[in-house]
Amino acid sequence: MATKKIGKQTVKFSNPPSIIAASTVVGPKEGEGPLKDYFDNILNDDLYGEKSWELAESKMQREAIKDGIQKANLNISDMDYMFSGDLLNQLMSATFAARDLKIPFFGLYGACSTMSESLSLGAMIIDGGYAKNIVAVTSSHFSSAERQYRFPLESGNQRPLTAQWTVTGSGAAIVSSSGNGPKITHVTTGKVIDLGIKDANNMGAAMAPAAVDTISIHFQDTGFSPDSYDLIVTGDLGAIGKEILEEKMLDNGYNMAKVYNDCGLLIFDNELQDTHSGGSGCGCSASVFCGYIYKEMKKKNINRVLLVSTGALLSTTSSQQGQSIPSIAHAVTITNDIN
Amino acid sequence: MATKKIGKQTVKFSNPPSIIAASTVVGPKEGEGPLKDYFDNILNDDLYGEKSWELAESKMQREAIKDGIQKANLNISDMDYMFSGDLLNQLMSATFAARDLKIPFFGLYGACSTMSESLSLGAMIIDGGYAKNIVAVTSSHFSSAERQYRFPLESGNQRPLTAQWTVTGSGAAIVSSSGNGPKITHVTTGKVIDLGIKDANNMGAAMAPAAVDTISIHFQDTGFSPDSYDLIVTGDLGAIGKEILEEKMLDNGYNMAKVYNDCGLLIFDNELQDTHSGGSGCGCSASVFCGYIYKEMKKKNINRVLLVSTGALLSTTSSQQGQSIPSIAHAVTITNDIN
Repeated sequence: MATKKIGKQTVKFSNPPSIIAASTVVGPKEGEGPLKDYFDNILNDDLYGEKSWELAESKMQREAIKDGIQKANLNISDMDYMFSGDLLNQLMSATFAARDLKIPFFGLYGACSTMSESLSLGAMIIDGGYAKNIVAVTSSHFSSAERQYRFPLESGNQRPLTAQWTVTGSGAAIVSSSGNGPKITHVTTGKVIDLGIKDANNMGAAMAPAAVDTISIHFQDTGFSPDSYDLIVTGDLGAIGKEILEEKMLDNGYNMAKVYNDCGLLIFDNELQDTHSGGSGCGCSASVFCGYIYKEMKKKNINRVLLVSTGALLSTTSSQQGQSIPSIAHAVTITNDIN
Repeated sequence: MATKKIGKQTVKFSNPPSIIAASTVVGPKEGEGPLKDYFDNILNDDLYGEKSWELAESKMQREAIKDGIQKANLNISDMDYMFSGDLLNQLMSATFAARDLKIPFFGLYGACSTMSESLSLGAMIIDGGYAKNIVAVTSSHFSSAERQYRFPLESGNQRPLTAQWTVTGSGAAIVSSSGNGPKITHVTTGKVIDLGIKDANNMGAAMAPAAVDTISIHFQDTGFSPDSYDLIVTGDLGAIGKEILEEKMLDNGYNMAKVYNDCGLLIFDNELQDTHSGGSGCGCSASVFCGYIYKEMKKKNINRVLLVSTGALLSTTSSQQGQSIPSIAHAVTITNDIN
């Protein structure tokens, strides 16, 4: 069989899969932000009727998936695979959602890069003929992430201005071998990059080099440039990481200014909402993509997007052991115009 | 494109990928067990020259990968993708290994099912034409797992007899679109199954229903039966889970007695080595497959294998919140005889 790999790290699909539906569930704070009109379900209470934030987060995934499947006029049993992950240890949100839905399940971990990881693998599995429909989904939850990674919320710790705010949100994309919707044409899979940054309160700076590496290789592999896209969007470098990315991409010969934005900056009004350097968490690029970007693509206001979800692959253990923060970014080309 | 999916949860490959090499690194205790002659690298000290058990575990993955690639007469740069995961929060072993090797990386989490998850996705990506060579790898480490999931080793806690012993080991398989070696012909992807067991010291009982579900569906989807295989091997149900599986499979009409074993029982002599219900951890099925099974397949002593790695998808958080243990099992058919 002829390889579909082009260049070093990119594959190009023979039969580009379609994103036939998408759905989002977000928390109250996200529902007050600039993208509020794009979300399908805005919670009044981030416990979502559950006994813990972790179970609430899992319910957000489950409900986003169910709503996405319904929008696609399909049944849960039509889903061949679920590609999912989240930030919680051992993927508690994803696995508990998969348990309830009984869809064959591939658990993924790529920190905040998980949305583009799940779209990448899901699209390959469809284009390769192994599935007709898959769901790619991720979530994060401010309170479950703070509890796990940082400090008890009750202690009211101050946050440095470089810190990002974990998004409470889930986004689910239903990807299919046929049907209407924006198509996934290319996938560039990232390497783990680590330039030695150790400050877990400055993850944007740690992740920016991974995004620069993946986007630059994507351009080399495909022959595309910033002009090939209406929107190139990282998720989530925040304000500081975005600035680093723009500068480093210029060094590599690419002027990103006209088309580049970051999901972490789109989802909150950082001044009004006091979110410091912007949003973060798997649920950030998931809900920004499945909410704002997907809906604007359906309306043809945006036609060619490079989604570059970016993950900081640290753990509390690696930080306590004085290790720096390895990061990764996966890029997915999503377009209304195949030619 | 014609679908390669057969039945409910199984895919059959058009161009079955070959496992062209495999390598293992295991700890001192595993190196004293019944499979000691099959392992490539037995450590004298489970710190492996590193400052922490977590970094030692990551080095085990890295060295197993490098040795596997060398055995395949390839270079690290020939690897299109690395599919990897481990038991540590945020996959510290896998991501730090991926950082050092700079292979495009898909992080997976399936607890102890990760070896067959990585082989499943890797084989689909090769058969689909997206890669020529991939490495599928996982690891676990007794001391890093105890520290994360259970009690400080220094407190010398007693373990109930139903408990399993986390294997210190890593196994890496180099899978390729061409070349000699056992071939992957079918993949059956599991659903998350949870029958309500809450005892984290009896994971075999929690995981057995997931293995029963996946193996039964594999037989239904493919028309295979226990007689189709020389060896059907779960990883890792241990003694109690194995018994449950055999009984439940009989209820489903399949007598597994002649061909069935469990990686957790193969790797240790439970009486001599005091490992209670047997081995566990992603590194168990990884090192048993990449060590014992792969080498016996190369010698044609075993020709048709169904590898069914099984994962208990609990976390300390889910246990503390009183949740039961969701489990999953993925099955991969590996054979010397394609017809």
